[in-house]
Amino acid sequence: MRLKNKPWALPLIQENPQYVVTEPQKFRGQWQERFAARQPLMIEVGMGKGRFILEMARQNPDKNFIGLEVQTTATGIALKKQLAANLPNLQFICGDGNEITEMFAPGEVAGIYLNFSDPWPKKRHAKRRLTYRTFLAQYQQIIASDGLLEFKTDNQGLFEYSLASLNNYGMVFDQVWLDLHHSKEAADNVMTEYEEKFSQKGQPIYKLAARFESKN
Amino acid sequence: MRLKNKPWALPLIQENPQYVVTEPQKFRGQWQERFAARQPLMIEVGMGKGRFILEMARQNPDKNFIGLEVQTTATGIALKKQLAANLPNLQFICGDGNEITEMFAPGEVAGIYLNFSDPWPKKRHAKRRLTYRTFLAQYQQIIASDGLLEFKTDNQGLFEYSLASLNNYGMVFDQVWLDLHHSKEAADNVMTEYEEKFSQKGQPIYKLAARFESKN
Ligand SMILES: C[S@@+](CC[C@H](N)C(=O)[O-])C[C@H]1O[C@@H](n2cnc3c(N)ncnc32)[C@H](O)[C@@H]1O
Ligand SMILES: C[S@@+](CC[C@H](N)C(=O)[O-])C[C@H]1O[C@@H](n2cnc3c(N)ncnc32)[C@H](O)[C@@H]1O
Repeated sequence: MRLKNKPWALPLIQENPQYVVTEPQKFRGQWQERFAARQPLMIEVGMGKGRFILEMARQNPDKNFIGLEVQTTATGIALKKQLAANLPNLQFICGDGNEITEMFAPGEVAGIYLNFSDPWPKKRHAKRRLTYRTFLAQYQQIIASDGLLEFKTDNQGLFEYSLASLNNYGMVFDQVWLDLHHSKEAADNVMTEYEEKFSQKGQPIYKLAARFESKN
Repeated sequence: MRLKNKPWALPLIQENPQYVVTEPQKFRGQWQERFAARQPLMIEVGMGKGRFILEMARQNPDKNFIGLEVQTTATGIALKKQLAANLPNLQFICGDGNEITEMFAPGEVAGIYLNFSDPWPKKRHAKRRLTYRTFLAQYQQIIASDGLLEFKTDNQGLFEYSLASLNNYGMVFDQVWLDLHHSKEAADNVMTEYEEKFSQKGQPIYKLAARFESKN
């Protein structure tokens, strides 16, 4: 999805380098220094307007969070929320997930969230899906060996594709949910903007939790 | 599911040893001899009343099929259909899928179908699910190295479980369908008795196609 460009977004980002990093390569291997405490670092790739990552940071003060988003306007909207919340364990990167290995050092990240990623339904666009194998290879480089990748979507085609893609890559599934909001784990689920919209329409929300390393 | 016992079923099975095998260990490694032609052997574990395996045999004269079923009454109902159809590429085994390695030699089977297997929803019954790892280990022993396991169900919990179970066992997914009847492949799909019943209620039908060997 592409948001309508808001002219205030870029200046707001530039005025708040304490929260938004626009040259993330500079902090590769040193992200912990940007937080009040050294603790496991969780990132969301494609955070959109940031509702999920803000709420996760609020609920989990014992972890650090980075929301990564390529669109300036979406990042600006997330930033407004953080300027109100001032969470010490939350940072943003305005940048492209395709350059993630230049942003993070091997093992620097404890967990990765992908929420309602763009589906790119056409086969010839499969390489752009955030669960395509070249993206998985990049996540694998930066994630700690027992780190979890959590993926949520309402998009049936993208979820079918992603189950096969992660499996074919050799990832080990912790758990699969075919209707997250009616599962036992629903109460603990932190919703994203898209999730609220699609679940209100009655569509099931799919979720997959998987690791790169075998559980044994 | 347990069918009401029909007193005619056992005698009918006993009168038709040309179609129903009740001592399958005797044919281990020699199943091809029971068919008109030597060709790839596909088996369904838990065929129920046999609609799927009969139609598969009809549509695929270049393959041999065996329907395996533990219940006498269900086997008897399937047998009645075969006595009308007289397909040269279809046999039945009345026996327990848990003894499958005693029934088939290594590599003797080209493909395995599991359709609407009993869900055994309670965690303490997980070992009885036909996609539990001990069953997978048995399928692996008898299936040819490029052989496909195809699994269909309407049961959300069983499908969630099976995706993780097959993945954790190291199986490679060919394809996942989260709503088979609305997919491109719907036209080629051969329905089972259960499938007709549940899809008429509007429930999505899930399908997974997977192999034991890597595709590379
Ligand atoms: C459909 S929106 C979902 C937003 C949010 N996660 C939610 O669930 O509400 C997908 C977001 O991912 C962002 N995105 C897509 N590809 C990206 C990439 N390669 N790097 C960073 N962000 C990306 C888009 O700009 C968009 O904001
Ligand atoms: C829910 S029914 C589905 C029947 C059929 N496949 C269909 O889709 O209509 C499951 C069938 O599997 C059979 N079954 C369950 N466990 C089995 C086992 N270990 N070996 C052979 N058959 C089994 C049951 O007796 C029952 O007929």
